Order: sequence, then C-alpha cells, then structure tokens
Amino acid sequence: MTVARGVWITFEGGDGVGKTTQARLLEDWLAAEGRTVVRTREPGGSDVGQLIRDIVLHHRGDIAPRAEALLYAADRAHHVRAVVRPALERGEVVIQDRYLDSSVAYQGAGRVLDADEVRDLSLWAAEGALPDVTVLLDLDPAAARARLDADDKPFDRLEAEKEDFHRRVREAFLALAAAEPERFLVVDAARSPETLAEAIRARIAPLL
Amino acid sequence: MTVARGVWITFEGGDGVGKTTQARLLEDWLAAEGRTVVRTREPGGSDVGQLIRDIVLHHRGDIAPRAEALLYAADRAHHVRAVVRPALERGEVVIQDRYLDSSVAYQGAGRVLDADEVRDLSLWAAEGALPDVTVLLDLDPAAARARLDADDKPFDRLEAEKEDFHRRVREAFLALAAAEPERFLVVDAARSPETLAEAIRARIAPLL
Repeated sequence: MTVARGVWITFEGGDGVGKTTQARLLEDWLAAEGRTVVRTREPGGSDVGQLIRDIVLHHRGDIAPRAEALLYAADRAHHVRAVVRPALERGEVVIQDRYLDSSVAYQGAGRVLDADEVRDLSLWAAEGALPDVTVLLDLDPAAARARLDADDKPFDRLEAEKEDFHRRVREAFLALAAAEPERFLVVDAARSPETLAEAIRARIAPLL
Repeated sequence: MTVARGVWITFEGGDGVGKTTQARLLEDWLAAEGRTVVRTREPGGSDVGQLIRDIVLHHRGDIAPRAEALLYAADRAHHVRAVVRPALERGEVVIQDRYLDSSVAYQGAGRVLDADEVRDLSLWAAEGALPDVTVLLDLDPAAARARLDADDKPFDRLEAEKEDFHRRVREAFLALAAAEPERFLVVDAARSPETLAEAIRARIAPLL
C-alpha cells in the first residue's frame, strides 16, 4: 500500500533538442488522461527563481563559476520547496524542464568545477529530492545548433558557448544516465517527435 | 620574508551597532597613513552582488531558508573573486561590512539551518578565504533596536525580524568570536565611537 502522491518527471538535454515540444506532448496526453499537470522549469520556475534566472542567463559580464553554481542551487532550493513538493503532495504530475542533472553537466563537466561538488550542492539545496523519471533527449550538438540557428531568438549566455563545451555537456549527460539507469530514460532526439512521445508515454504510464 | 600583500578587515555585528561609522573612521585613518583602501560589503559588493542583494533583502514574499543561504553564498563567491582577491593582490586594504560570520549567525543560528553546513557552504563559495581581522561590534539587541528606531529608513527583511531572533544572532556571533580569538577583535559597541576606533586601530596597526 502506497500513499497517494504525484509523479515528478524532468526533461534534460542540450538546447535545441526538443525538450519543450516533448514536455507539451506529454502534458497534453496526461491532461487527456484526467491528470492535473504542473509544467515548470529551472531556473525560473518560481517568483524568486525568475529573478535568479535573469541574473544567470542575462547578466552582462562575467559571473564567477562558483557563484553561478550557487545561483542555480538557490533557484532549485526555492523551487523544490515552493512549487514541486506542494504539487506532488496534492497528487499532481510535475513536468519540469531541467533539474540537477543540468547543473552537473553544465557547471560541473562543462566548466571548471568538480562535478561531485556541484551534485552535492544541488542535493543539499533540494533536500535530496530526485524525480521519478528523467527523460534525456540526446542529440549531437551540431544538429541541435542547426535547430537553434533556424530559430530567430538571440542566444542567451549558455547557448553562446563554443561547440566543444556543448560536446562535453552531452557526454556528461550520457554518463549521468549510465550511472542511474533506473531513473533515466534516454531517447534519440533525432527521431520524430511522435516516436519520441510514444517512448516517453510508455515509460510514464506504469507510474500513473 | 613575506610577499607584499594587502590586509583584509571585516566588520560584524547586528544592525544598528555602528559598523558603518567604524568602517569610515578606520578608512579615514588608513587613508591618512597613505594606504589605498577598498570599502565594500556583503551582500552587494559587486555588480552581480547588487542584483542578489535586491533579492535577499527586498523580495516581497517568503524565500526558502536554503535558497537564502545559497544566495548569500553566491554573492560571496563572486565578491571574493571579483573584488576582494584582486585588491589584496594589489596590496590594498579591504574594509568589508559583513562576511561569512554573518551568514553563520543569521542563517545558521538565527534560522532553521545547521550552522556548520552554512559555514561549509560559505567556505566553499569563498574558496576558503578568511579575513586577517574580524571586528565584532557587540551590543544588546534592545540598544541596537533603539538606534535603528531613531533612524527614519524603513526596515528591510532581516531588520524586521523579532527581538528573540536578534538575541540568538548576537549569541552566535559571540560564540564564533570565542572559537577563533586570533581572528576576532570583540569590542563593546555601547562605548563612544572614538574609543572604539582607537581599539580597532591598535589591533590593525601591527599588520600594516
């Protein structure tokens, strides 16, 4: 016998891999199944988080690497407390764009910090909370970049990093997924959106 | 033989104890001695820090305790990297309003977090950097409150906390000073500003 509670799903992967599209398709399906869905994101999934997101993504000028990691962790701490946990306690489904795996991949592997330190920091911030399922949309950075170039939005601070950086981030995501196969679902983001959505639904359905 | 480097002095204590007055008197004296002085503060001693300061001190609405601690640590990480270390490397004197002892006293002892965890977080943020001298201006919270009431500025989020909170913060500061007597100079902030300034100068002079 389990206590009624919600389901927490996070989407991870580089920019341009299709996280938003898949999150929306999953939300539509869950809503059709009669579930209450909370769509959220990090950074910026709460009121305080919006202010933090503005700093980490749009500040002109350098931010010290540890300061950047701490800002993401601050956003996470407030978001988990104020948004994620309350929704799960109400039995809702939380669909979230990016969580601690992004911090480890971007701040840890992509920059100059120790990945384990960044992970410990995130887990302290989140009081140890981990999602039920993490969907990793895996795509070659060159292909992801081509999708972003086709878009007309200006790049934010992270999107503007060099290709080698994005390659290290991709490798870090794949290593994280390999280390926690029970939490991760890795899908090939080069496949069609509907094929991907089907694979994701198949992984989520047993949890509902 | 020592490498030429600066001197780093932090001022600690509750609001209304006279930190700003003493920092200014010390700066005037050091300038008269021909030293280059950098006056700074946490939170808010850097460009990124100003944005963070706005959130922690002026956000309307709750901030999760761990998020608050992480925001102060983020401010610290950037400030030490961008402001304090460069000044010390140029051989200047850094006079700073609040540093990690404030985080431990306010977030650790004053709120619901573990003081050791908050200290570890600050030290990670600052890459272990500690000041040469920390001046603790010690004052009964009721006396400090009376000084603030005489002022006409509105209270920020921390100043508006209840008296019991400020009493726990004072005790935490005194415990920190007792644990590191070689770094701390504790002075009775009820004494006259000139008497205090003299005691502080006597402690700093041998370091110049």
